[in-house]
Amino acid sequence: MTTRHDGRAPDELRPVRLTRGWSEHPEGSVLVEFGRTRVLCTASFTPGVPRWRKGSGQGWVTAEYAMLPRATHTRGDRESVKGRVGGRTHEISRLVGRALRAVVDTSALGENTVQLDCDVLQADGGTRTAAITGAYVALADACAWAVREGHVPATAQPLTGSVAAVSVGVVDGRPVLDLDYPEDVAAGTDMNVVCTGDGRFVEVQGTAEGAPFDRTELDALLDLASAGCVALAGHQAAALAGPLPGA
Amino acid sequence: MTTRHDGRAPDELRPVRLTRGWSEHPEGSVLVEFGRTRVLCTASFTPGVPRWRKGSGQGWVTAEYAMLPRATHTRGDRESVKGRVGGRTHEISRLVGRALRAVVDTSALGENTVQLDCDVLQADGGTRTAAITGAYVALADACAWAVREGHVPATAQPLTGSVAAVSVGVVDGRPVLDLDYPEDVAAGTDMNVVCTGDGRFVEVQGTAEGAPFDRTELDALLDLASAGCVALAGHQAAALAGPLPGA
Amino acid sequence: MTTRHDGRAPDELRPVRLTRGWSEHPEGSVLVEFGRTRVLCTASFTPGVPRWRKGSGQGWVTAEYAMLPRATHTRGDRESVKGRVGGRTHEISRLVGRALRAVVDTSALGENTVQLDCDVLQADGGTRTAAITGAYVALADACAWAVREGHVPATAQPLTGSVAAVSVGVVDGRPVLDLDYPEDVAAGTDMNVVCTGDGRFVEVQGTAEGAPFDRTELDALLDLASAGCVALAGHQAAALAGPLPGA
Amino acid sequence: MTTRHDGRAPDELRPVRLTRGWSEHPEGSVLVEFGRTRVLCTASFTPGVPRWRKGSGQGWVTAEYAMLPRATHTRGDRESVKGRVGGRTHEISRLVGRALRAVVDTSALGENTVQLDCDVLQADGGTRTAAITGAYVALADACAWAVREGHVPATAQPLTGSVAAVSVGVVDGRPVLDLDYPEDVAAGTDMNVVCTGDGRFVEVQGTAEGAPFDRTELDALLDLASAGCVALAGHQAAALAGPLPGA
Amino acid sequence: MTTRHDGRAPDELRPVRLTRGWSEHPEGSVLVEFGRTRVLCTASFTPGVPRWRKGSGQGWVTAEYAMLPRATHTRGDRESVKGRVGGRTHEISRLVGRALRAVVDTSALGENTVQLDCDVLQADGGTRTAAITGAYVALADACAWAVREGHVPATAQPLTGSVAAVSVGVVDGRPVLDLDYPEDVAAGTDMNVVCTGDGRFVEVQGTAEGAPFDRTELDALLDLASAGCVALAGHQAAALAGPLPGA
Amino acid sequence: MTTRHDGRAPDELRPVRLTRGWSEHPEGSVLVEFGRTRVLCTASFTPGVPRWRKGSGQGWVTAEYAMLPRATHTRGDRESVKGRVGGRTHEISRLVGRALRAVVDTSALGENTVQLDCDVLQADGGTRTAAITGAYVALADACAWAVREGHVPATAQPLTGSVAAVSVGVVDGRPVLDLDYPEDVAAGTDMNVVCTGDGRFVEVQGTAEGAPFDRTELDALLDLASAGCVALAGHQAAALAGPLPGA
Repeated sequence: MTTRHDGRAPDELRPVRLTRGWSEHPEGSVLVEFGRTRVLCTASFTPGVPRWRKGSGQGWVTAEYAMLPRATHTRGDRESVKGRVGGRTHEISRLVGRALRAVVDTSALGENTVQLDCDVLQADGGTRTAAITGAYVALADACAWAVREGHVPATAQPLTGSVAAVSVGVVDGRPVLDLDYPEDVAAGTDMNVVCTGDGRFVEVQGTAEGAPFDRTELDALLDLASAGCVALAGHQAAALAGPLPGA
Repeated sequence: MTTRHDGRAPDELRPVRLTRGWSEHPEGSVLVEFGRTRVLCTASFTPGVPRWRKGSGQGWVTAEYAMLPRATHTRGDRESVKGRVGGRTHEISRLVGRALRAVVDTSALGENTVQLDCDVLQADGGTRTAAITGAYVALADACAWAVREGHVPATAQPLTGSVAAVSVGVVDGRPVLDLDYPEDVAAGTDMNVVCTGDGRFVEVQGTAEGAPFDRTELDALLDLASAGCVALAGHQAAALAGPLPGA
Repeated sequence: MTTRHDGRAPDELRPVRLTRGWSEHPEGSVLVEFGRTRVLCTASFTPGVPRWRKGSGQGWVTAEYAMLPRATHTRGDRESVKGRVGGRTHEISRLVGRALRAVVDTSALGENTVQLDCDVLQADGGTRTAAITGAYVALADACAWAVREGHVPATAQPLTGSVAAVSVGVVDGRPVLDLDYPEDVAAGTDMNVVCTGDGRFVEVQGTAEGAPFDRTELDALLDLASAGCVALAGHQAAALAGPLPGA
Repeated sequence: MTTRHDGRAPDELRPVRLTRGWSEHPEGSVLVEFGRTRVLCTASFTPGVPRWRKGSGQGWVTAEYAMLPRATHTRGDRESVKGRVGGRTHEISRLVGRALRAVVDTSALGENTVQLDCDVLQADGGTRTAAITGAYVALADACAWAVREGHVPATAQPLTGSVAAVSVGVVDGRPVLDLDYPEDVAAGTDMNVVCTGDGRFVEVQGTAEGAPFDRTELDALLDLASAGCVALAGHQAAALAGPLPGA
Repeated sequence: MTTRHDGRAPDELRPVRLTRGWSEHPEGSVLVEFGRTRVLCTASFTPGVPRWRKGSGQGWVTAEYAMLPRATHTRGDRESVKGRVGGRTHEISRLVGRALRAVVDTSALGENTVQLDCDVLQADGGTRTAAITGAYVALADACAWAVREGHVPATAQPLTGSVAAVSVGVVDGRPVLDLDYPEDVAAGTDMNVVCTGDGRFVEVQGTAEGAPFDRTELDALLDLASAGCVALAGHQAAALAGPLPGA
Repeated sequence: MTTRHDGRAPDELRPVRLTRGWSEHPEGSVLVEFGRTRVLCTASFTPGVPRWRKGSGQGWVTAEYAMLPRATHTRGDRESVKGRVGGRTHEISRLVGRALRAVVDTSALGENTVQLDCDVLQADGGTRTAAITGAYVALADACAWAVREGHVPATAQPLTGSVAAVSVGVVDGRPVLDLDYPEDVAAGTDMNVVCTGDGRFVEVQGTAEGAPFDRTELDALLDLASAGCVALAGHQAAALAGPLPGA
């Protein structure tokens, strides 16, 4: 059986790196790398919540995703210059926010806001899944910071678990895990799966790029994705096992 | 076992109505109703394609989804007045476009464009799935019009099959089909599924609104959605069995 | 003497239909049809007024007009996608708002807001006059709803009269009433007139499309329009004579 | 019988000044003053027409109206800074364009464009009517320039006549001509009338600000406006009787 | 030694005119002319400050610069119509604001705001320096007005000095003062200098348009600019020596 | 004499790092660090020029500067989400473009475009000067790439020299070089200077933040800046002395 173009097994992730504290200013900051895909995830903690949530006793977590113009093979126009955020950007920002909120207990967070920013510095496929995986670690550091600084009581547990994401797809008729850009282009079916650390699904988004897919294919992709998310949860735990950067 | 709040069985669609030719100007026009949800789907056929596709010999199909400001219980601001299309609107427009393109053979369509517009006149849950289901019928009428008018050769088959969509979700711990608005609000997990008429998947989008969901739940929802799409394909076929409106 | 292209007499309206309660959510909702022109008018009642009016004891009525992209013979781009409301849309929205406010006693309305939305589903000339005529009926229903629900005292009379609008123009050298699209295109002079039910003028907007017009022509058009508005006021009264939909 | 607050008779214009060649760069440029209202009107002549008109053999005339932020008693926000042109501005720009095109023979103009810009430097009521009246003189100078420079044949007559505009209204129950700002605020009915130099109507726009108006009132206002436009046509002719500035 | 194209000596300003009270509504208003460059500067005084400054006891001075579309040789598109303020406009607005704030004691001004508007009516080079020079005089009049009207105590000195600006550049290898448009186009190095009346620098902005410049050239330009600003301070003082317009 | 808060001498730069090839996709890519300020500069080379330059035989170089939202101590809103580029961003983008074009021979570049993007990943003062200094190195690599790939003849010299930039300011009454953020906040006068490698000035931008500055101060700052730019030119040369990354 042939291997993938970069030599990986079908169920093999690209090398994963999670560098905590890559930036100094944010309360949480992680440079996440899935192979050559590189995303800077920052978590900005602010006391207080948006007006519509005031007095609720509950916090808020939201996210924005963006790409530097030359993160990609050919330069894309800046959305700030175009004056509007594109549909893809908007969609991924919403996905990242939903994914992270799935593991946040907003009551335990109290009336505080965490703003996640995921900026793609270099893109080679899987930028949204890397963003979610890295943002979780940045969020965990921001929550630890908030406890340490007394914004959140030491007994509160704002995080109910961990969350990670991975892409799967059918390339050359075979289901594979964590597609890089050439695979993404070649994939007949493309799916992004977000799972909690205990293996449950937060989000499943599958799209037939070419021919529609049947249930057997779908099941195989879901199996692959579940296993991939478990592996990523391990990377996250390992990264968070070290001391809080700057502490 | 208790029934749903409106008396439906768990696997029962709301009453479906597909009124072809509801508007006179468009080449295809369908008022689709899933219960009280009411979407006007129009298909505008234009010879020629966008610049980036010229000379390719291939056609183009694209879609825009929008809601009238008072389609909902409380009025929403107009996106034209706000000066930007919101994230949800953008996301659904992209979904509708992808869903319809999944059953279009753009070579057979030739260098022609079909623009689908799905405007929600009244919303009661499932507006995006109704939009896809109705847009397919409008698209079919527009393709028939194009053949009749000689824009597409009579031997060409621009459509490779039919496509429909339905929502499923877990309400009160039980998987149910085709959620109306009160069910949608109450649902723990929410999934939109787009299938071709022959039962294959075009798009699967599942989101945990509350607790993450496990594989068993996911499997049950997928079963329910597949059956629902088959039933909708039947409604589409029945609607299209009559004469072309205005012909 | 020859008749018009659709057989009408010069002073004859197209068939008028006012369907109350066409949508379920709004406090007032009317589908108005002037021949093939079809406009959905909704009136959204909200307690409270915009900030600049707070504490004045007076209510506010405002309107927005828009067209679905394929309401017309050829598709127009969506203003939400273009990111700005066009001049024509803006102008008509302002006209509709002024016309309706002319028959509202804002003190009697109290500090409540009625937002009128007029969305053209199908256009065949006279969309702005149909919008005003239908919006009045929707507004009347919303006011009745507000009284019934106790937002406005039963003794208050927020409406001081009725208002309707019609177009007149010179086609083939002859003044005619209620132009449809082919007549509108052919008209040398085009005038929209808004009148109260007792025959007084609220707005007169006449434009020479081709040659300037003289006083004789202007007088003939004003006569025609006055009579047309009286007839429309009759249609409105008849529609409102029935029970309040959903009551 | 009492006079108006500034001593004018009911049918008396404010002092009118038309200063040709106020700016050096434009092909036509007029500072028009109706009393304290002061509008700079420039006409920019460019060979060629917008794309949609190419090959038609016909020219194009269009207009933009705007106000300096402190032209008024209290400062208004800049529309460039707000990022959108307001409804009133849009509406008046369209009115000015239509008014001027009413006296242009676009075939005689040839495939050339005249862009009119009317910028209100100081506002004291009647800015749109001053703009139209001044823009005509700027347009006439630009056409003369175009003939002199050979862009338009010497035998061509791009202008079929003159055009001017004036406001009329009912103040303290009495119809008056050319309202200044205090009168405009006090007026029950407000009408702007655009006439050609030979006394025919190009545009009639009347609005009931308070109580609706009846036919008698309307007739009185139209009489007053017609006479006012004739007087303005005289001012225009006198201004244009001198030599072309800079010639 | 040859003179400049308009006969001026290298260190000679164009004729300067400062017409106070050119507009009636603003609290300060100056038409400033540097030769054929003509800028209307208005100062709008408002009690109160922006929200972020409330309770500080300090006032605020800000500025906006803009050009009429046909202030230039060829017409430029309106920024309001384009929907965004261009980079050059933004940059100059910020420069004018900084320059004026350099001579304002915001504590002495109290919680009041002065908004400066500099609108270029005719451009012939040096519009930003004329704007600053004129805006100072408008600001001085607005401050005097505020004292006279009791908004600022008679003993307060909101202005700590005067401010003026001038351009210098290297044309045909020779440093010259106050470039007009043809010189500006020909200049190898272009510098705008803002000085207080006592000869100190507020802003120095030099740009090599062609070849980079050396320190000797820079020194010569700074000498020229300092002397020019002193001369302009004299013009400002002379203009302000007369009575306050309208007082 | 006391040292600065971080122990530097008044004329000492922060540690400078220029990491070439930090990103893989762009034709030139440099991560530049001035102490804790960190800017990713990419140079995107594209054959062809914007429409207005076609047929000129000349190339084009342009630049965009931006900041990640949490590059700073407190998070700033994204300009893409706000829908407009702020004045500061616009101004710096223009400055970077002018600075780089000062050392480009556009004829030697041929009809090719280089787009520079400078994205601030972490801000600690001097982001614009770091951006210019890093962008030069990225531009040099992109030009080398273009020669190697045959887009530009091997004999052409698109770069006429090098360019670098540094900030200087008066802090605690003493002129210092290369201000970090705390110094920038404390500085009375702030100046950014752009010089070519041979010590000539491309741009001088000095602003009095507090009291205006006199000629002596200005001279001292210019001396300091010139020396700083020479030192930076050395860093650039050293960085470029190594092999082209990826070659």
